[in-house]
Amino acid sequence: MKKTKNKNPAVPGFKAAGLHCGIKDKKIKDLALVVSEVPATAAAVFTKNRVVSPGVTWSRRALAKSGSCRAVVVNSGNANAVTGPKGLKDCDTITQKVAKELGIPQNEVFIASTGIIGVPLPLEKIIKATPKLISKLGKQAKNWTEASEAIMTTDLVSKSDKISYTFKNQRIEIGGITKGSGMIHPNMATMLGFIFTDAVIDAKTLKRALKEAIDRSFNRITVDGDNSTNDCVAIIANGKAKNPTIKPNTPGYREFLNALTKLSKSLASKIVLDGEGATKFVTVRVQGGKTRKQAYLIANSVATSSLVKTALFGEDPNWGRIFCAVGNAGAPLNPDKVDILLNKNLLLKNGNPTHLSQKILEKSMRQHEINITIDLKCGKEWEEVFTCDLSYDYVKINAEYTT
Amino acid sequence: MKKTKNKNPAVPGFKAAGLHCGIKDKKIKDLALVVSEVPATAAAVFTKNRVVSPGVTWSRRALAKSGSCRAVVVNSGNANAVTGPKGLKDCDTITQKVAKELGIPQNEVFIASTGIIGVPLPLEKIIKATPKLISKLGKQAKNWTEASEAIMTTDLVSKSDKISYTFKNQRIEIGGITKGSGMIHPNMATMLGFIFTDAVIDAKTLKRALKEAIDRSFNRITVDGDNSTNDCVAIIANGKAKNPTIKPNTPGYREFLNALTKLSKSLASKIVLDGEGATKFVTVRVQGGKTRKQAYLIANSVATSSLVKTALFGEDPNWGRIFCAVGNAGAPLNPDKVDILLNKNLLLKNGNPTHLSQKILEKSMRQHEINITIDLKCGKEWEEVFTCDLSYDYVKINAEYTT
Repeated sequence: MKKTKNKNPAVPGFKAAGLHCGIKDKKIKDLALVVSEVPATAAAVFTKNRVVSPGVTWSRRALAKSGSCRAVVVNSGNANAVTGPKGLKDCDTITQKVAKELGIPQNEVFIASTGIIGVPLPLEKIIKATPKLISKLGKQAKNWTEASEAIMTTDLVSKSDKISYTFKNQRIEIGGITKGSGMIHPNMATMLGFIFTDAVIDAKTLKRALKEAIDRSFNRITVDGDNSTNDCVAIIANGKAKNPTIKPNTPGYREFLNALTKLSKSLASKIVLDGEGATKFVTVRVQGGKTRKQAYLIANSVATSSLVKTALFGEDPNWGRIFCAVGNAGAPLNPDKVDILLNKNLLLKNGNPTHLSQKILEKSMRQHEINITIDLKCGKEWEEVFTCDLSYDYVKINAEYTT
Repeated sequence: MKKTKNKNPAVPGFKAAGLHCGIKDKKIKDLALVVSEVPATAAAVFTKNRVVSPGVTWSRRALAKSGSCRAVVVNSGNANAVTGPKGLKDCDTITQKVAKELGIPQNEVFIASTGIIGVPLPLEKIIKATPKLISKLGKQAKNWTEASEAIMTTDLVSKSDKISYTFKNQRIEIGGITKGSGMIHPNMATMLGFIFTDAVIDAKTLKRALKEAIDRSFNRITVDGDNSTNDCVAIIANGKAKNPTIKPNTPGYREFLNALTKLSKSLASKIVLDGEGATKFVTVRVQGGKTRKQAYLIANSVATSSLVKTALFGEDPNWGRIFCAVGNAGAPLNPDKVDILLNKNLLLKNGNPTHLSQKILEKSMRQHEINITIDLKCGKEWEEVFTCDLSYDYVKINAEYTT
């Protein structure tokens, strides 16, 4: 599938590093670190899965206590999930080591893992590699590339992006790295996102902005509909831009939120584009909704329907499956008002098929980017969910790996 | 996939017929009729999709008015869904014709359709074939086979079964035909079930029994997680057994419910066994639940997870994906108490992997029938969901058909 270009995510005041510590075979990078030169506020959003990895438990706790964060340490290849009491103890040992080496409080180290579950973390390898990892920290594009590569699992490409904007003559930068694709064997891959900004913003406002941005981006992508045990998106703001503190409900907040949402959407889209076996990037937009919840339920029902996703893979303009998924969402709606568009083609008007030329539709379906628009015509709320198609390769990747 | 044997579903006092009226090509049967010789009580359960076919609207209304039913007419090849005002008018014309020819009230004709959506029903073909269909009505196994074949769409085999039991020296028979597999192109296939019994039972009690039976059977199967616009299961009781009327909360009710549930489970299983591209029959049992809802949400989350289903196709004993789907169900649970069994093998005990020999597990996974048991150990409620694996052929069948 077509890949989007990565931008160097470097933001003033942050350093990054990545290396191979031995969790994965073949010298593939598996340990990443990003550090802020100065104290920084932080916020994070974690998986909604009831089974969570010790890393999630540890980082959630530390962030609640400190409200700030100076370092993010991430390993790939092993999710440190379903590993019993040792799992949490390992998080403690690693964050203690990182904190000590960096000379910062332990509660300001954020830890995350991704990879195989049910296997204890090779703790010694991580501890042993920590001093070298710290010595490799740098501000160059190369350092950020190494960090973004070191958090990959089944991802085919590393993923990073950056956005900057000027508000009242002050330039603010937001950069991020992410990893994802679906959840595949060995056992699962996780969605991780780490965002860095030089804005001055308090932890509470940062959390609010992150949540709002995520609800239009990371929380609106679906490759196979599952939340892993390790998912998290964190943001760290080190204040290097020296802008007046961003306060909620101000023009400054709206500018920041707008940029953060754009960046998050770009990073999240890169995960979908790298979806397992994906051949198409699909935007399901539900508009004219009475509530956002109604619009979301319907968009999500369409975006997660195996029948819709296989039809997209088959390049079949199958409005019947889309309409059926709309009705199946468990949300109230008036079917006699529904319009459905595939790209720019109106397939269904007021709940009735328009019988457009199949030839035109099939041509339109061959595009790489597909937009499904569903207009409920009962209000002004909208939601967008981003997904990919369901292909042979999805089954292949997910079925053929045997332990 | 292994098919189960069909039993002749003939029940005293019912006649059946099926023929080719011309909706499908190649002389494939596409019109079925089952008639009770005497007035009969009836109950039905319909799709929960918000987009419903006119047949569902018509039959629901007629049944509400009459509380009884003498005839079921079903066409396959065309779902008469999303067909505008003509759809409902066609239902009226067909049921009127059937009623007139049989000399019964129009409100006692139940109509159902399955097949392509968005295309008007070829009404004339059905009307023209009705007298011939009625003339073919008979009580022989052959007649029932024809009827069960005439409701098929993408089904590879016809599906019928029968059960009988004796209660206080009175023999009661329950037989049924069904069709299903997934929902595939052209546009969708539907789950239909028609059950016939000679028991004496009032309409209200019959409805209650049907709902209870369906919640352990037809409502607990999932091939691809979608409810079509046309799904319905109906039961007709003609009283030919002359038993004392079955009343709720009596031993007689429990016997009837037990038999009806068994039959419904057998019919529903046949749909799963015929699932598109299915190679395995999978029972996901959640036990030790605090509530049935909790148990159901978790069982359904596991049974609909693409990751679990592709692992089953790949014969990979992947407890990680199962545990993740358990946590993903949106139901409260204590992960540290959860046991997971694959067939008889304990994979996870109290939320920790048991590290059983991979060789034993892989051998076990090669079985045709797979039982996943999840014990929450927090109560006594249980639920079972029946499903199949997700294979290349599922994608093939659903993607490759192009209009």
